[in-house]
Amino acid sequence: MERMRGGITAPTGFRASGIACGLKRSGRPDLSLILSDRPAEAAGLFTTNRVRAAPVILGEELLAAHGHGIRGILTVSGVANAMTGPEGIDDNRAILAEAEGALKLPRASLLPACTGIIGPRIPLDRVRAGLPQLVRQLRHGREADRHAAHAILTTDTRAKMVALRGRLEDGTIVRVGGMAKGSGMIAPKLGPPHATTLGYLTTDARVRPDTLGAILGREADRTFNMVTVDGDTSTNDTLYLLANGAAGGGYADDDPAFRQLVGSALEELARAIARDGEGATKLLTVTVSGARSLADARSAARAVAGSTLVKAAIFGADPNVGRIAAALGYSGARIDPARLDVALHTPRAEVPLIVEGRPAPGLENGHGKRIRELLLRLDEVPLRVHLHAGRATATAWGCDLSYSYVQINAAYHT
Amino acid sequence: MERMRGGITAPTGFRASGIACGLKRSGRPDLSLILSDRPAEAAGLFTTNRVRAAPVILGEELLAAHGHGIRGILTVSGVANAMTGPEGIDDNRAILAEAEGALKLPRASLLPACTGIIGPRIPLDRVRAGLPQLVRQLRHGREADRHAAHAILTTDTRAKMVALRGRLEDGTIVRVGGMAKGSGMIAPKLGPPHATTLGYLTTDARVRPDTLGAILGREADRTFNMVTVDGDTSTNDTLYLLANGAAGGGYADDDPAFRQLVGSALEELARAIARDGEGATKLLTVTVSGARSLADARSAARAVAGSTLVKAAIFGADPNVGRIAAALGYSGARIDPARLDVALHTPRAEVPLIVEGRPAPGLENGHGKRIRELLLRLDEVPLRVHLHAGRATATAWGCDLSYSYVQINAAYHT
Repeated sequence: MERMRGGITAPTGFRASGIACGLKRSGRPDLSLILSDRPAEAAGLFTTNRVRAAPVILGEELLAAHGHGIRGILTVSGVANAMTGPEGIDDNRAILAEAEGALKLPRASLLPACTGIIGPRIPLDRVRAGLPQLVRQLRHGREADRHAAHAILTTDTRAKMVALRGRLEDGTIVRVGGMAKGSGMIAPKLGPPHATTLGYLTTDARVRPDTLGAILGREADRTFNMVTVDGDTSTNDTLYLLANGAAGGGYADDDPAFRQLVGSALEELARAIARDGEGATKLLTVTVSGARSLADARSAARAVAGSTLVKAAIFGADPNVGRIAAALGYSGARIDPARLDVALHTPRAEVPLIVEGRPAPGLENGHGKRIRELLLRLDEVPLRVHLHAGRATATAWGCDLSYSYVQINAAYHT
Repeated sequence: MERMRGGITAPTGFRASGIACGLKRSGRPDLSLILSDRPAEAAGLFTTNRVRAAPVILGEELLAAHGHGIRGILTVSGVANAMTGPEGIDDNRAILAEAEGALKLPRASLLPACTGIIGPRIPLDRVRAGLPQLVRQLRHGREADRHAAHAILTTDTRAKMVALRGRLEDGTIVRVGGMAKGSGMIAPKLGPPHATTLGYLTTDARVRPDTLGAILGREADRTFNMVTVDGDTSTNDTLYLLANGAAGGGYADDDPAFRQLVGSALEELARAIARDGEGATKLLTVTVSGARSLADARSAARAVAGSTLVKAAIFGADPNVGRIAAALGYSGARIDPARLDVALHTPRAEVPLIVEGRPAPGLENGHGKRIRELLLRLDEVPLRVHLHAGRATATAWGCDLSYSYVQINAAYHT
């Protein structure tokens, strides 16, 4: 497996574009289009929130009916098109039809997604006015990757892209490209796999339609579903994977190399989302091992990464280990409090924080001061937890809680 | 039912005191004692966190063995005595024994509680040195109520007290007094009843030991278990109820008036805890009606009151109704998104926010501006949610999320 530069158009046969049509007061890009030059197999995962945005309802419906004639994804950023009733679904259908017309595609070729403020309807006239330019600017290459990735952002501070290349067992070289947005209203849950935020993967691998969803589900559960920023599960979460088969060769479904490419691409986007959590100054990575079950490992990792108090302590570079222990204790995972080990595991050192359920020796004195200095320097805080209760392992990604998070969310709407 | 001035010693036969023995760097009071002049029936509820502080383990053990010879509660504030292993339990036993000696009480007469920083052990010498003064200052009356209530606080900005008086069916006048602390690490969960924070009730009613726990459990589930500040369930949560029977008369267990007194006292303390949540500028009260089950009503109310994004919006006086709908959607409650109604229900007006699943008309314009001005003025934000799915109702109490919350928790430990 090899990292490539670029993003969503890195696989053969994909183009993309992103423009501003005037949906955001800031004037930032707000319309994004991904297009495959041939029909692609498609799979999608959607929010489990019972309040579902119109594009989520419509996207699921389109995939159920036409999963293998998909040509692309049209994303509106700035307006969530949620709480908009049947009219919201009609609005989304209308802009998809308009874009399909401009691209001379049959109906139901494009998948929808929206992100932004909940409540208002999509200003159709602005989107319509922007579509010709959006179509005209469709390109292959790194500049197009950047334009498309920027045009799906809301409170994000940077675009999130990934491109990987690998060799299947039959020798075929396949590529996976991806882009994502997500900074707030981010809180995946265990259970049936589901997506959080907006995430799109493209690949030129040949994949059977039946297995594409299963591969996406399994890898998303380990990656996107293990990101938490604020505990709020969105109404609009959508994750799409398009496979257009342009690389040729045999079917990639059963090839471990293909699953690894998809998993690695999702993991990289998941980390990027956590790192760019609203107001975040540090990425928080929590790896739990020695759990009695995978569910326990995931619950424990997510409880620590999502704890408001742990997040505030990390922002303050405060080695407040009691909060880590408390989060593990309420996580629901089966733990023996007397056997907990927690360490700060940086590339250069493993620094104990909790040893057999007690604060590491010296934590209140010199050792604590050194950890504090270390925390101040790190922009990724990697916590390793060992439960000594079994053999399951999981990793969760989060971020610290800063003043900026409050500022962003006290003022986002107005 | 009638409100009285005062707190924990309002019922007949109770005394209390609070002093500073030097556990807190701030020099604030840190040792608190409640004493009944005769043996009392006692019930307790404890955290469901799997990491349990020494006083939680010990308190539960004492109640299981001696529920009806209890004379009082000794609270240490500043040190949680959690993650301290068997030595922590020995430490707590030692200070209880020392206090029992000073009071000439038999062993196992006093119940323990601790709150403060997790990790360090109790400085036994300081507590021992403070006990004589603590015992000497035991008094009945409002000054003693204040001293005892102040001495259990940590990041709280004010003492939380309640005193109520009511008449049983047989004519007996009984009193319920209470005090509580709690500002951060506050997140009750549904399920088996359990306490959050420290809360103590005293009463002079005569109550059978068997039913006391059931009454406390049921009323706590509706009150203390519906408070959320930060989603972090503590290692030290403890709720005690002591009934010394000094009012005479018949048994109060089956008397609805007694249950109502206990429930009202707990509700008043629960509201006080939410209002004094770390950094809070506003109390948030969420009442859900029309739910299909009590569990649904509770989940829905708690999801809204606990949503980081709703809390930040309330701080910013921002009528961001999409966040309320999203929280209801991920709460797990069975809702029909098209039938949601949400209003701001102040004593003077009912202002619609969501009508049949859509933002209230005009929310983006003049109506929104008026709501914003209203939110700026209110120090209690009362949200009313109607799910139109059944007949169950529940209320949850929370607070907004401010810059101060981050400041307090980025700097608490160091």
